[in-house]
Amino acid sequence: MPAQPDACLAALAAAFPPAALLQGGAIPARNLQDTSYLPPETPLAVVRPDTPQGVAEAVRICARHGVAVVPQGGLTGLAGGAHPLAGAVMLSLERLAGIEEMDTAASTMTVRAGTPLEVIQRAADEAGFLVPLDLGARGSCQIGGNLGTNAGGNRVIRYGMAREMVLGLEYVLPDGTLVTSLNKMIKNNAGYDLKQLFIGSEGTLGIITRAVLRMQPKPGCVNAALCGMESYADVVALLGAARRGLGPMLSAFEVMWDDYWHEVTETVGVRAPLAGRHALYVLIEAQGLSEAVDGPRFQSWIESQFEAGLIGDAAVSQSMGDVAAFWAMRDACSEFGSRLGPHVAFDVGLPVARMDDFAKACKARLAERVPDAFSVYYGHIGDGNLHLVALSRGAAVQPMGLISAAVYETVRDFDGTISAEHGIGLLKKSYLGHTRSPQELALMRRLKAAMDPQGILNPGKVFDMEDKA
Amino acid sequence: MPAQPDACLAALAAAFPPAALLQGGAIPARNLQDTSYLPPETPLAVVRPDTPQGVAEAVRICARHGVAVVPQGGLTGLAGGAHPLAGAVMLSLERLAGIEEMDTAASTMTVRAGTPLEVIQRAADEAGFLVPLDLGARGSCQIGGNLGTNAGGNRVIRYGMAREMVLGLEYVLPDGTLVTSLNKMIKNNAGYDLKQLFIGSEGTLGIITRAVLRMQPKPGCVNAALCGMESYADVVALLGAARRGLGPMLSAFEVMWDDYWHEVTETVGVRAPLAGRHALYVLIEAQGLSEAVDGPRFQSWIESQFEAGLIGDAAVSQSMGDVAAFWAMRDACSEFGSRLGPHVAFDVGLPVARMDDFAKACKARLAERVPDAFSVYYGHIGDGNLHLVALSRGAAVQPMGLISAAVYETVRDFDGTISAEHGIGLLKKSYLGHTRSPQELALMRRLKAAMDPQGILNPGKVFDMEDKA
Repeated sequence: MPAQPDACLAALAAAFPPAALLQGGAIPARNLQDTSYLPPETPLAVVRPDTPQGVAEAVRICARHGVAVVPQGGLTGLAGGAHPLAGAVMLSLERLAGIEEMDTAASTMTVRAGTPLEVIQRAADEAGFLVPLDLGARGSCQIGGNLGTNAGGNRVIRYGMAREMVLGLEYVLPDGTLVTSLNKMIKNNAGYDLKQLFIGSEGTLGIITRAVLRMQPKPGCVNAALCGMESYADVVALLGAARRGLGPMLSAFEVMWDDYWHEVTETVGVRAPLAGRHALYVLIEAQGLSEAVDGPRFQSWIESQFEAGLIGDAAVSQSMGDVAAFWAMRDACSEFGSRLGPHVAFDVGLPVARMDDFAKACKARLAERVPDAFSVYYGHIGDGNLHLVALSRGAAVQPMGLISAAVYETVRDFDGTISAEHGIGLLKKSYLGHTRSPQELALMRRLKAAMDPQGILNPGKVFDMEDKA
Repeated sequence: MPAQPDACLAALAAAFPPAALLQGGAIPARNLQDTSYLPPETPLAVVRPDTPQGVAEAVRICARHGVAVVPQGGLTGLAGGAHPLAGAVMLSLERLAGIEEMDTAASTMTVRAGTPLEVIQRAADEAGFLVPLDLGARGSCQIGGNLGTNAGGNRVIRYGMAREMVLGLEYVLPDGTLVTSLNKMIKNNAGYDLKQLFIGSEGTLGIITRAVLRMQPKPGCVNAALCGMESYADVVALLGAARRGLGPMLSAFEVMWDDYWHEVTETVGVRAPLAGRHALYVLIEAQGLSEAVDGPRFQSWIESQFEAGLIGDAAVSQSMGDVAAFWAMRDACSEFGSRLGPHVAFDVGLPVARMDDFAKACKARLAERVPDAFSVYYGHIGDGNLHLVALSRGAAVQPMGLISAAVYETVRDFDGTISAEHGIGLLKKSYLGHTRSPQELALMRRLKAAMDPQGILNPGKVFDMEDKA
C-alpha cells in the first residue's frame, strides 16, 4: 500500500488531543535523534498516547494508512534503534508512565512502558525490594526501551539481563492489536512464551506498553576489592575461584587492561586506589546479607587468593566510599568523550577464555589498518562482555568504517558477538552477518514478515528485509 | 501436499542404516506412548539419527513427502507432547547423546539433545560445577525434551526454569534447515534471540539437536527447616522474610496443605518429621557456601522467625539425613498413584497471594460437581506453582473431564495458568484458552504457520490450527 501521510495525520488528529500529537516545529529537538547521534531527522509527527489503548489506536491508524511507526522511549540508545525515520510517525511512550501495582507477596511490580528506570528502582527500594537492572542512563532511560533492547548493565553476572526480570508483558502488534499478558508467575508453561519475541527485538515486532517485573530481595551489604593481576590466565582462574568462593553473592567481576588503567589515571586523572602497575586489574564486588557475617567472609576469601598466589596486590573496601572509589576507575570511561576526543566505542562479546587473545589481535589489526591507531580494553568479563574504545590519533575526522571493520572482523574470527548489550539498531546492522549465520538471518526475516507483513514497525532497524550480502 | 508415506519410508531407508530406522514390530513398546499414558499408537516408523545433520536429513525427507514428524526424547512428559501420531515418523534423539565440551572458563557445557539429564548433572558435579535443573525423571529424561518443554523442578525459585540455563542452541527447522547457534556468552544482543522460540514450544516449531548450558557454582552446604504454620497469611509473610533473610541462598520454599500432610502420613505412611497438626507446612531450604558460616546463620534466622511469632513449630536440619527426611514428606506425592488409586494430577500456577483462596474455591467446586470428591494441595509456592491431586472416591472410572473442567475453571477465575511446568501437549490443549487470550492464541497460530507452513512438526500438539472456540 502506498503511504497516505495526509490522511494518516488527519485520522491521528481526530483520535488524539493536541497535547498528544506534535508536528513540524512543535516537535521538541530531543525527539529528532537518539544517543547514536546520527544526523537529526524530522518525522511526519510525534504521537504521545497515555494509555495502552491509545498506543494500539495510533498503530492501527498508521497501519491503515501505510505509514511507518518508530517507537521512542528515553532516547538513550547508542545503536540508533529509536532514531527517527523520515515520513514515519514517532510513537513516544513518555506519557504512558507510572507504576500500576506492587505485589509484595509475588515480589512483582507492574509498570507502564514510559516509566524511567530510576523511578522503578526507587519505588522498589522504598518497598524493601531491589530491581537489579541498572545502567548509566537510569535517570532518563525508560523501562519500555530497556526491555525492547534487553538492556544489560553491571550486575548481569548475578541477576541476568533485562529479559530475565520480566514475568508478564503487554504489547501492541504491527496491526494495532493490543495483547495483554500480565503474568506474575515465575513458572508458566501454557503455550508459547510470546513475550520473548518482543524483548530485545528493538521495537521491530511490537511496541511494549506495560510489564510485570520480578523484584529481588535488597542486599544487606556490599564488599569489593580491586586486584592487580600479572596475567590473563590468573584473571580466568580468579573468576573461577570467585564463582566458587562467593557463589551467588558475586555481583560484579570487571576487568581493566593496563592500557585502560593508564588512560584513566593519566588522561582522565582519576586517582588510582591501587599503587603499582599490573598487566590487568580486576574489580570484584559481592553483595551479601549482613556485614557482620559477609564482611569477614569476603576479607578471608581475598586473603586465600593471595595465599594461593593468584593475586599480586589488592585493595579491599573498608567502607562504601572505598567501593565507590573502585567503581570510579571502571566508570571513568564515561569521560573518554571529553578527554580522548572523538572515538569509536564498542560493546562486543567473546568467550571468556579468548578475551585477552582478542584484545591483542584487535590492537594488531587496528595498528595495521588505521593510521596512528589507539585503543583501550575493559569490560564485564564475567558475562563475556568486552568494551573497547578506538581512534586514529590526530585524525580530523575519525575513520569510523575502517575502525569498525577491523574490530568486527576480529570479533568474527574469535566467534564473538558484535553487540553484547547495546543492540544493533542502525549503526551495526551491516555487521550483523559477522555474528549470525545466513540461516539465522533468514529466520529473523521470516519472523518479521509474519508478524509485520506491511513492514510498518521500525522498518530498517536491526536488519534489512532484502539480503544485501 | 498429500502425504506419501511409502516414498518417505523408501527415502529414509536409503538415507539411514537399519539400526537408525525401525518399523512395525521392530518398534520398541516404549516408543508407542509417553508418560501421559494415552493409548499406545503405532507410528509409520521411528528414525534415530546420531548426528544433527542426520536429524536435519530425516526432517527434510519427511517434509518433502508431506509426512508429519514427532520428536521424542526420554518420553517422560506428562502432557502428551511426545505421544506418537498415526501416520507420522517419530524422530527419537536417543542416539544423539553425549557431552561435547566443558568450558570451565565460561562455565558452560555443550551437550547433545539425547543426553539424559542425570549424565549432565554428574559431569558438572565431577568438574566442580552444578547444573541446577533437577526433576524426578532425571535418570531417563533427556536434555532436549527438558528444553523443548522448558522444564521446571524444585529449585526454580533460585535458579529459574530450564530457559534461563540455555546460552546457545542448535535446532532443525520444519523444512530440515539446521541452524547452529552455540553461543557461550551471557550477554548477546545481536538481533532476535531466536533460541527462545524453540524452548518450551514442545517441538512444534523446531527440533533441538544441541545446547550450550550455563553451569553454576556447586553449593558448599544445605540447610533446611520444616515449619508448622497456622494461617496462609503467615506463610506469605514467611516467604517474604525468607527472601529478605536468606537472599540468594533460598533454594526451595515448598508448602503442603494439611489435607496433603494427612494423606502422606496416614495413607502413604511416611513418618512425620514434625509433631502436631497445623493448617499448613512449609519446607524451607537454603544452599550456602560453607556450613561453618551458613549453618549458624540459617539457625539464627529460623529463631528470629519464631521470636517474631510467624512460626508455630519447626524442625531444623542437623544433618543431610534430616534434609532428606523433610523432602520425603514433599516427594511422597509420587506414591499417590499406588496408594490413592486412579486420580487426576494437576500442575497449575497462581499468584502467590491467592493460592489458599484458590485451594478453598477449587475444593468447593469439586465437591459441587464431582461425586465423593477428594483433593489435596501442595507445591512450589515461591515460584507460583501449585500441584493438586483430585479424584472421585470409589468411582470405577475417574470422571477426568468433570474434574479437569472444575479445576481449570477455578484457575481461570483466579488468573492462574493451567500449566506451570508440565506443558500443554495433547492433554491440556482444550483448556489453553482458560489461560491465554484469543489474541495470544491467534499469535501462536500465526507463528506456527510462518515457521511450519506445511504443518509437519508435531501437529496438533499445544493447540490446533483451527480455532474451535
